Amino acid sequence: MTERPLILVTNDDGINAPGIRTLIDIMKSIGDVIVVAPNSPQSGMGHAITLDSTLHAEEININNKTSQKEFSCSGTPADCVKLAIRVLSPRKPDLCVSGINHGSNSSINVIYSGTMSAAIEAGIEGIPAIGFSLLDYKWNANFEASKAYVKTITENVLKEGLPSGVVLNVNIPNVPENNIKGIKICRQAKANWVEEFDKRKTPQGKDYYWLTGKFVNLDGGEDTDEWALENGYVSVVPVQFDLTAHYFIKNLNTWDLK
Amino acid sequence: MTERPLILVTNDDGINAPGIRTLIDIMKSIGDVIVVAPNSPQSGMGHAITLDSTLHAEEININNKTSQKEFSCSGTPADCVKLAIRVLSPRKPDLCVSGINHGSNSSINVIYSGTMSAAIEAGIEGIPAIGFSLLDYKWNANFEASKAYVKTITENVLKEGLPSGVVLNVNIPNVPENNIKGIKICRQAKANWVEEFDKRKTPQGKDYYWLTGKFVNLDGGEDTDEWALENGYVSVVPVQFDLTAHYFIKNLNTWDLK
Repeated sequence: MTERPLILVTNDDGINAPGIRTLIDIMKSIGDVIVVAPNSPQSGMGHAITLDSTLHAEEININNKTSQKEFSCSGTPADCVKLAIRVLSPRKPDLCVSGINHGSNSSINVIYSGTMSAAIEAGIEGIPAIGFSLLDYKWNANFEASKAYVKTITENVLKEGLPSGVVLNVNIPNVPENNIKGIKICRQAKANWVEEFDKRKTPQGKDYYWLTGKFVNLDGGEDTDEWALENGYVSVVPVQFDLTAHYFIKNLNTWDLK
Repeated sequence: MTERPLILVTNDDGINAPGIRTLIDIMKSIGDVIVVAPNSPQSGMGHAITLDSTLHAEEININNKTSQKEFSCSGTPADCVKLAIRVLSPRKPDLCVSGINHGSNSSINVIYSGTMSAAIEAGIEGIPAIGFSLLDYKWNANFEASKAYVKTITENVLKEGLPSGVVLNVNIPNVPENNIKGIKICRQAKANWVEEFDKRKTPQGKDYYWLTGKFVNLDGGEDTDEWALENGYVSVVPVQFDLTAHYFIKNLNTWDLK
């Protein structure tokens, strides 16, 4: 690539989150940057899109000294990517990066993740895309150790490209930089959340619930993202949005369906 | 199965939608029914879950003559399934059915679909699950032609089971019953939405947008759900929630990632 790539940056924690500010800084060293990100936290939004209400996008940080454009958007992460590609970006971005998420999007979390849905939305549009997440939910999480890995992986994607239908899900362990052992290519671990609903009563005496739960990893495979993260590696899972369970088609064809 | 199966029914169009009322009626002829569905439409919610606010579930239709229990829930389709399994259902359901959706969830729509996210959520919990959708967005859509197919597919799933990690995405063409040619096992077609944002101005002069767009099928394969539906078949796609693009792991391992 001879000219600087145009990189679309988004996330699900909101445009002011320290994670996306770190990601913007890294991307400015690689290419030209356009930011279109939610104006408020959107964690757990999955691949939601806004069908029944209006979308607003406001240009912010207009007078800053750097070249990137930034738009704060009322929609979900997937909305942000759609609006960026169709309306706000001066041309089709060469790459989309999402994050750095405050908290894990490994294993089954990819399903619920607004961070990853933004990357998948870009992938559907034929744009190479990466979601980055740090295993620290705190707002003041330390993203220092992430920087070199985010840069290396991004540069490799720009150099190598990604096949149609594939985006990357990158998770970074919450350990000091010297304790990170490297990057490991993985598969999504088989895991789930065991919810524990906290049942309470409103002042008027009606039941209501808070969703809580604990994460259960059912998969000891050393080729999984959970294993990599527990053992100090940055995990990289190639993610596809063809959800077809191809292997089961043959079996289904033996069923008694007229 | 000697005793009647317990069937969890949910959807994303809301508990009062004609589609779920039809589905409840069909399921009552097969097993015992518990309904936990959103109290308002949730189309396009993808796999969103409610993390930052409370969940409410109200028992409704308590005095009706039938045996099923029904709960109207403030959450997303995925929330409804979690709350049903952990709190509201007397035991773990033997099956979860979602729909009948007013509108298509074929091809890439599976990604945005609240109907399918409910089925996937049940699948993550180890419950066989099916999402049903009719290709008619209208509230007064005619579900007559769907009934026999919904029943046949449901009975087959109860009889045959589904492998761990697989749920079914069933779409029904919007044609008279006599014109339906049968059931076809398919893969998800490669298709996407080309958005056209309708840009307007608020009374105060600020830009805002409505998300609109047209569906583009890029995949002529006769083994796809789009082909089946266009040719008068009910499409059945086995859907998995291991999103790993396994085939690309070997290639990624050749990249220059330390």
